[in-house]
Amino acid sequence: MFAVPLTGELLIAGAARMGRAGVVHAYDASTGDQMEPAFGKADNTDLETACAAAQAAFQPYRTLPYAERAVFLETIAEQIEAIGDALIVRAMAETGLPRARLEGERTRTCGQLRLFAQVVRDGGFLEARIDPALPNRAPLARPDLRLRNIPLGPVAVFGASNFPLAFSVAGGDTASALAAGCPVIVKAHSAHPGVSELVGRAVQAAVTKRGLPGGVFTMLHGDGREIGQGLVADPRIKAVGFTGSRAGGLALVRTAQTRPVPIPVYAEMSSINPVILMPAALASRAQPIANAFVAALTLGAGQFCTNPGLVLAVDGPDLDAFLKAASSAVAAAPAQVMLTAGIRLAYENGVSRLGEARGVSCVGVGPPAAGAASPALFTVSGRDFLAHPELTEEVFGAASLVVRCQDMGELRTIIETLEGQLTVAVHADEADHPQLGALLPALELLAGRVLVNGFGTGVEVAHAMVHGGPYPSTSDGRATSVGSLAIARFHRPVCYQNLPDTLLPNELKAANPLSLRRRIDGALTAP
Amino acid sequence: MFAVPLTGELLIAGAARMGRAGVVHAYDASTGDQMEPAFGKADNTDLETACAAAQAAFQPYRTLPYAERAVFLETIAEQIEAIGDALIVRAMAETGLPRARLEGERTRTCGQLRLFAQVVRDGGFLEARIDPALPNRAPLARPDLRLRNIPLGPVAVFGASNFPLAFSVAGGDTASALAAGCPVIVKAHSAHPGVSELVGRAVQAAVTKRGLPGGVFTMLHGDGREIGQGLVADPRIKAVGFTGSRAGGLALVRTAQTRPVPIPVYAEMSSINPVILMPAALASRAQPIANAFVAALTLGAGQFCTNPGLVLAVDGPDLDAFLKAASSAVAAAPAQVMLTAGIRLAYENGVSRLGEARGVSCVGVGPPAAGAASPALFTVSGRDFLAHPELTEEVFGAASLVVRCQDMGELRTIIETLEGQLTVAVHADEADHPQLGALLPALELLAGRVLVNGFGTGVEVAHAMVHGGPYPSTSDGRATSVGSLAIARFHRPVCYQNLPDTLLPNELKAANPLSLRRRIDGALTAP
Repeated sequence: MFAVPLTGELLIAGAARMGRAGVVHAYDASTGDQMEPAFGKADNTDLETACAAAQAAFQPYRTLPYAERAVFLETIAEQIEAIGDALIVRAMAETGLPRARLEGERTRTCGQLRLFAQVVRDGGFLEARIDPALPNRAPLARPDLRLRNIPLGPVAVFGASNFPLAFSVAGGDTASALAAGCPVIVKAHSAHPGVSELVGRAVQAAVTKRGLPGGVFTMLHGDGREIGQGLVADPRIKAVGFTGSRAGGLALVRTAQTRPVPIPVYAEMSSINPVILMPAALASRAQPIANAFVAALTLGAGQFCTNPGLVLAVDGPDLDAFLKAASSAVAAAPAQVMLTAGIRLAYENGVSRLGEARGVSCVGVGPPAAGAASPALFTVSGRDFLAHPELTEEVFGAASLVVRCQDMGELRTIIETLEGQLTVAVHADEADHPQLGALLPALELLAGRVLVNGFGTGVEVAHAMVHGGPYPSTSDGRATSVGSLAIARFHRPVCYQNLPDTLLPNELKAANPLSLRRRIDGALTAP
Repeated sequence: MFAVPLTGELLIAGAARMGRAGVVHAYDASTGDQMEPAFGKADNTDLETACAAAQAAFQPYRTLPYAERAVFLETIAEQIEAIGDALIVRAMAETGLPRARLEGERTRTCGQLRLFAQVVRDGGFLEARIDPALPNRAPLARPDLRLRNIPLGPVAVFGASNFPLAFSVAGGDTASALAAGCPVIVKAHSAHPGVSELVGRAVQAAVTKRGLPGGVFTMLHGDGREIGQGLVADPRIKAVGFTGSRAGGLALVRTAQTRPVPIPVYAEMSSINPVILMPAALASRAQPIANAFVAALTLGAGQFCTNPGLVLAVDGPDLDAFLKAASSAVAAAPAQVMLTAGIRLAYENGVSRLGEARGVSCVGVGPPAAGAASPALFTVSGRDFLAHPELTEEVFGAASLVVRCQDMGELRTIIETLEGQLTVAVHADEADHPQLGALLPALELLAGRVLVNGFGTGVEVAHAMVHGGPYPSTSDGRATSVGSLAIARFHRPVCYQNLPDTLLPNELKAANPLSLRRRIDGALTAP
């Protein structure tokens, strides 16, 4: 069935070997059937080998010329493309996601690697700064001071189940860490081990092709609680990228904080992504907004970190019209295969819990189908919502809760009591702008991305993207895990004082051999 | 004695009131005499008032035009200067530091506020980015994406004992937090409550003069374990700046991490600031380096975070010459009054502990004087140093340990096993450059600042400064607490997607009304 044979091996530092700590299998998401081959799980020896190799690779990799680092990222993209259709076919089987979505995700993943190649070539992320010496300054001379960012060291990456390409083995965390100059050790997600091996081999091939030390990249299979925790606890690992559940993320945060030398964890955890329907927009466009909402809600079986899990609007006939249209659209939306049986079970439990919660009514549910999940829509009053904080818990999948607010005051109160979110979306007509303007300060404190007349489900890989947000949507709201700014998670500044020019890094030499834009005496200066 | 009368009051959100949770007194550092007045300590009601006012001030303060924010910072500097000599006189009494040092520190403090005014006017810290919509892109249109940094919210600042002006009430943490748009609540250091009140009143006067909400600034007296911990635990506080001991910093980190919503703590804690003497420099300049070293060691009674507490060099006649000169200089260095009796006691204990440690010899000690601390110099072999990790513990004061390394290999091993440091200094002649070049990668991983032919004690307030470093020198090695980059600690990025131009913040409007340099489609673009 596959042009590229899968071996089930671990990909450690340029080599492949079968893990000996038991096996994990992939399951066909649609049929539940176990798939071949068996993937061997890593033991502590594998972990040790991987960490030692990553540490050994750090110095040669970080000092590679930036142009070569950029080509390496582009080579990874080419190698992923070279896998061809086998990648899509395996991904469809392992995740149940449709072909078009996976092809789009592959494009996104390769585009992301190429964007980071541009970022590396641009060099702005290095934040080069020069304050030249002022030998005659009174009462004290100023020394020559120069600053650049350097990479933190080897990074551990935990892939997500819901984006088997874009947030997995060669996804955003890996791409941005490699762009920053950090070797990467990926703990592959057990829901798509075959895709992980295919992509991991593509990265490994790029490492070989570019003549880099093998330790630049490792991919391990294994349990999060064992090999994952061991990875985060290893003193050679200097930062962690994670996308997944709140429990999983917080467990890694705890491990990272209690190390002898704590390290940063960038965990993107959970979000219900409130959608606010402003009065004029609701009055003029209830039906099209409802249709767009249900399309966003059911996209990819609702398996997006940015899925719209909460809708806020003022109660009344316009909201009734929205609910009527949304309920019909939900009732017409086909059930979809979810990523894993476990995720479907959790979704079904979440839907049952919501349906039984005090004051909550189910107003729409899609037709059932064996082995698939149906979308579901609920309503609750603003008062009951405020009284039951558990209603803010994420139900991962195509379920959403519409809160009928008494007035805009109650809606604002709800916004101000919500936990931190990845996104908040507002549907507004021009007549809503004054009220929206007054609400905006609260929205930007609530979320990492504020959007108008859309839904958060599309996360553009761009320079101005923020896929992050206040705790607990992420463990560190100062960062983004998508877009070019994601590179900033993996470096730190170093100041060089009175270094002879010959010993300065190229970024800071007087002749500016890298032609960087540098901040000289505080002023950005073209090369 | 003082032109400005001290009242001992708390300065809460534009008002002054006497704290009712007991009192704290200042002590004359030279005589040990208790000084007037009594300073009233804050209770939970004061804390509540301060936090509520800071939260209320956040929105109006962060939306103040940047030009006005800059003038506010400059007004603080003017108000501090307007205190006149009373500030210096009180600081001399409370800290035992000499007049020239305190006058220099005042200049630095006011210069720092003015530097941040420039940073605010420059606007580069806002990181404005625009990725314009691509409505015709296939297969999917790109939305309009715009990014800027916004401030985190009210910040708690803990002043240091050793810089009563530059790292205290209106020091670097306060200046950078205010520059970022965050209200500040300062927990005044109990070692200089009078200076704190004087400076606090200057900040308060600037708040009033510029017509800002009182909650922009509060200064509280109280114990770190009570009012300090309460401050860090308060949900309205969004970040913490701290300079002090490792135990104190880590206690705040723990509190911040175990809040329902954790917050970042920027704690600058401890460092022994290794000094490496390279062979050629040692051969050619043992005597002048020794003299400069002892001058740096004894500056301000050694009470610098960047004090050179460790010297590494290859054993031999050149190191003997260095030690001979350094020992003589130490023996000739007068005893100095330390900041507090407690700090002197801790120093004396540290010196005794060092002197009694296995393999350690005392090779120089200054003449004793009642109530003052004498500098002390010790040596140990590289082998004994490596065998006794406790020898790396900071002794706060003018004590240093010279490690006689067997060869450059052992010296490198020591560098690679040391904990994270604020600074590492190297003394090198041109003949040393090849060896130094090979050592540099290890040095930049060790410290936040690498300097050649100098000592870390002068921390220039500049754009290219890093006063930070890997754990445990700070709790977050990605940050600096001195220099213009310190502002980056107190903001986070927000993305605005498809917002109508009228609702966009000025930083991101199409017309660029703030004339910012913005990154458009990834390319930095002049206004």
